[in-house]
Amino acid sequence: MSKESQREQKQVLHSLRWEDEALSLLDQRLLPEETVYLRLTTPQDVWEAIRELKVRGAPAIGIAAAYGVVLGLSGLEGAPSAWESEVKRHADYLATSRPTAVNLFWALDRMKARAKALAESGLSAAEATQALLDEAKTIHAEDEATNRLIGEHALTLFRDGMGVLTHCNAGGLATAKYGTALAPFYLALEQGIHLKVFADETRPVLQGARLTAFELQQAGVDVTLICDNMAGHVMSKGWVQAVIVGTDRVAANGDVANKIGTYSVAVLAKAHNIPFYVACPLSTIDLSTPTGADIPIEERHPDEVAAGFGKRTAPEGVAIYNPAFDITPNELVTAIITEKGIVTAPYADSLRKLFEDA
Amino acid sequence: MSKESQREQKQVLHSLRWEDEALSLLDQRLLPEETVYLRLTTPQDVWEAIRELKVRGAPAIGIAAAYGVVLGLSGLEGAPSAWESEVKRHADYLATSRPTAVNLFWALDRMKARAKALAESGLSAAEATQALLDEAKTIHAEDEATNRLIGEHALTLFRDGMGVLTHCNAGGLATAKYGTALAPFYLALEQGIHLKVFADETRPVLQGARLTAFELQQAGVDVTLICDNMAGHVMSKGWVQAVIVGTDRVAANGDVANKIGTYSVAVLAKAHNIPFYVACPLSTIDLSTPTGADIPIEERHPDEVAAGFGKRTAPEGVAIYNPAFDITPNELVTAIITEKGIVTAPYADSLRKLFEDA
Repeated sequence: MSKESQREQKQVLHSLRWEDEALSLLDQRLLPEETVYLRLTTPQDVWEAIRELKVRGAPAIGIAAAYGVVLGLSGLEGAPSAWESEVKRHADYLATSRPTAVNLFWALDRMKARAKALAESGLSAAEATQALLDEAKTIHAEDEATNRLIGEHALTLFRDGMGVLTHCNAGGLATAKYGTALAPFYLALEQGIHLKVFADETRPVLQGARLTAFELQQAGVDVTLICDNMAGHVMSKGWVQAVIVGTDRVAANGDVANKIGTYSVAVLAKAHNIPFYVACPLSTIDLSTPTGADIPIEERHPDEVAAGFGKRTAPEGVAIYNPAFDITPNELVTAIITEKGIVTAPYADSLRKLFEDA
Repeated sequence: MSKESQREQKQVLHSLRWEDEALSLLDQRLLPEETVYLRLTTPQDVWEAIRELKVRGAPAIGIAAAYGVVLGLSGLEGAPSAWESEVKRHADYLATSRPTAVNLFWALDRMKARAKALAESGLSAAEATQALLDEAKTIHAEDEATNRLIGEHALTLFRDGMGVLTHCNAGGLATAKYGTALAPFYLALEQGIHLKVFADETRPVLQGARLTAFELQQAGVDVTLICDNMAGHVMSKGWVQAVIVGTDRVAANGDVANKIGTYSVAVLAKAHNIPFYVACPLSTIDLSTPTGADIPIEERHPDEVAAGFGKRTAPEGVAIYNPAFDITPNELVTAIITEKGIVTAPYADSLRKLFEDA
């Protein structure tokens, strides 16, 4: 993997792009101080980029993984059955990079299904490689279109002058463009609707401070950064009329896995009679996961908490609990906003129907 | 002010001590990495130490300020009316160092009242200086005795094996010894009662990570550090049977001002049917403040949020809201634990009665 530091106009930041037979990927760990694009050329590069949070956000992880499969096919040869099993091998490897986000598995399953179909139609290895690249590009393009639709639906829930709180980063940096939870803020800006956004900084990795505050500020959205523990206080002051977050996986019953702290925000929203919205594409909804209890919660290294700012801020050797996600039970979710529309409880029915209609 | 780095046995850390006609004060901003005692010799040194959070915690601030007055009296001369106005001048100056903690004003008022009495009895300046130093030492010693009593009362609410969550640092480092909210943990340890403590890291200044986790770990208490936004998740897992926090000021109606994030913890505790306790000496209860709405909330510099740990973690120029405290309304407070016993709602009555009995 080579590292290229390209200073770009900040307003045209993209999270990832296929370029010169490689995946050009913004290293999000360095934001907001440095804008560095990495040139990834192997599935291993992509696995590592996902694992180390260089790329994060459920949709962006899925897109990166799809391109990661293609990166493994360079110089591919042999009979359809041989190259298909090669595709499968890379996809299964990439699926081990992180455990919670369902889009990762969704995108990789889609690549495997496409490979299977291509193999069955007897395509050569070279033809299949091109077709699989086209499939990854399609996943990428669909994500942008999907997010725009999510933003349009979400915006129907907001009114000019409202305060809206968000947690973590479900923005353009987490997706192909626009984001999920942040999409309505970009569309509101286009339409001259003023929303006052509060961004939780989102410890331990500070995606809210480093990414959400950054991308909204770049775009000109009215955003105020707060520490996670200020959310309740800001709500108690009457400054927040809605909460909107993204998600890494929605279970069939509407339970929502998202960045650690989301559950606390949902409880606080309920205590203040503030609606709590979740924005996501259908690819994040996993009907094969019955409830939130069935979603594995990744625990990450204690040093993210103890020494995340370039300086040790907790005593050596102290016990630290560092779950990366939590589960918000469906009864705290006012509505789920997708590219196919807005659904409400009972989610077991409304989510199933969403897929039947789709 | 001279700076002396004294490496001490960690288990005997003290927050402050009168030594060689100066105030020896642990610089808490450098913990847990460095244990540095500052030698403060003027009221200005003390003002700055309070302002810059070198010393923090309502009781410790009060004690430091009392010694700060004494530091202004070196070489004091003149008639009683002259030196009494000098005491008043130093006390009024020190009162401007921070606005929220009532112990600061309480300790300074006590020093002024003592000076007035001494002046009225016609003491010389030299005699008065010694008597005022004795008064500061008395405030200091009383705090330790008070905290031990608070710990004994609080411990009656806990049972072996319980999980207890705390926010910020109301420990030995915030007081003369034992702390308020942390006092029962030290006494439990003495008595062989096992409590599993969860310490919120407490952004932005991380008093929970740097101080609470540190002092409890040093003492051998079972402590697990979490990010503030994990508190709800940890409660939802059934790991927390009680919350206990300190406070900077309790209003006459039982509303509680404490470190930002306390209100969110109280709302989360209520949503999980977990009792929420506040521990403080009577000197923190201010019957002249009718409600929480009458307590000024200090807002601090945005860089505490944006660049607090040696590295910038938020974009330049982004709007940041950084209140240092919030108000927890009395209806979320299960009980207030003082050196005179435990009181419950209705607080307007129970707090008033506490002072009548005292």
